[in-house]
Amino acid sequence: MKKPQPINEVIENLTVLPGIGPRMAERTAYFLLKQGSDFIDRFVAALLGLKSLVRCGECHAVGEKNPCDICADVGRDRQKLAVVESPADIEALERTRKYGGLYFVLGGLISPLDGVNVSDIPVDALKERIKKTDVKEVIVATDPNTKGETTALFLTEALKDSGVKITRLAYGLPFGGDLEYADEITLGSAIEGRKEIKKTEKK
Amino acid sequence: MKKPQPINEVIENLTVLPGIGPRMAERTAYFLLKQGSDFIDRFVAALLGLKSLVRCGECHAVGEKNPCDICADVGRDRQKLAVVESPADIEALERTRKYGGLYFVLGGLISPLDGVNVSDIPVDALKERIKKTDVKEVIVATDPNTKGETTALFLTEALKDSGVKITRLAYGLPFGGDLEYADEITLGSAIEGRKEIKKTEKK
Repeated sequence: MKKPQPINEVIENLTVLPGIGPRMAERTAYFLLKQGSDFIDRFVAALLGLKSLVRCGECHAVGEKNPCDICADVGRDRQKLAVVESPADIEALERTRKYGGLYFVLGGLISPLDGVNVSDIPVDALKERIKKTDVKEVIVATDPNTKGETTALFLTEALKDSGVKITRLAYGLPFGGDLEYADEITLGSAIEGRKEIKKTEKK
Repeated sequence: MKKPQPINEVIENLTVLPGIGPRMAERTAYFLLKQGSDFIDRFVAALLGLKSLVRCGECHAVGEKNPCDICADVGRDRQKLAVVESPADIEALERTRKYGGLYFVLGGLISPLDGVNVSDIPVDALKERIKKTDVKEVIVATDPNTKGETTALFLTEALKDSGVKITRLAYGLPFGGDLEYADEITLGSAIEGRKEIKKTEKK
């Protein structure tokens, strides 16, 4: 028995999504079928809702408004600009409540294997944003991995004449982790980046 | 920053799907957003395509026709009826090319924890199908796990007066596996169900 074509088409679309392989796509397609028309209609309405979102002309984050709430907020520190990969990273940084500056969304990290090249990084828009505003510090807040590092290096080079301070998120031990099981790069960074707790005098 | 409502709605729908947790749903929602309108439109069209499928009045499998190709095929062995959980199981059995009989789809296995009770198993429709046809053997082809076993026991009891032979798929070692790592239930079943390869005479 061949699968009905409509099921194959849903499977094809699902396998494009990250982390969904052929078997999970098949399982999900049959699950959707079992849920019935009402569920499918609600799911479809939610998906179509995504099309109503707009890109903020300033930070490039996709949301309900342009400019977005953060860019429009006069109370934020306009001298700091955190460069992130995606809007999800903005949410993560906002949850820390340790950052009150602005953001710039790259939309991707350099990864030739995934088809994302240097030319896909919106450097010109970033430079333009820096030039037009009071930004004094650009915090490169890309992922702590190879793609994030490559992109950070590239941005550092691209912004070298922009007259701003360029910083990077600190590497170190994750809270709640186990020193014994930390990888060498993390532990090495934690040693290099060690901080003074208290200064005492030798008598 | 709160997530835009359209993104939250997609996340809510995605988390209902099997195997997709909150984090993966969030990642998928942002992925969809990044893919853009054309991808969303194709995905939506595929999902809506599922609504065109119909349930076969005989075997209860959902597909493009009623009756489905298998039930309509006069060349199949109409004395055998395999009872399965879902259409995906029909595909798996068909791929073996070892079964030429008919099917009956339960739509679920008994699992009170998942909200599937005895009353959700379409026993009456199954009995009706057996009564109206030439079925001589009902092969209970439910999953080799607790839910599948519970359902098989229930069906065996429910069909005890139906005058057909009731069989169950054999348990044993999976091909390509490692005897050393087989669990006790599987290995125990493999010993109990051992088959004669050749009869030789002791001299």
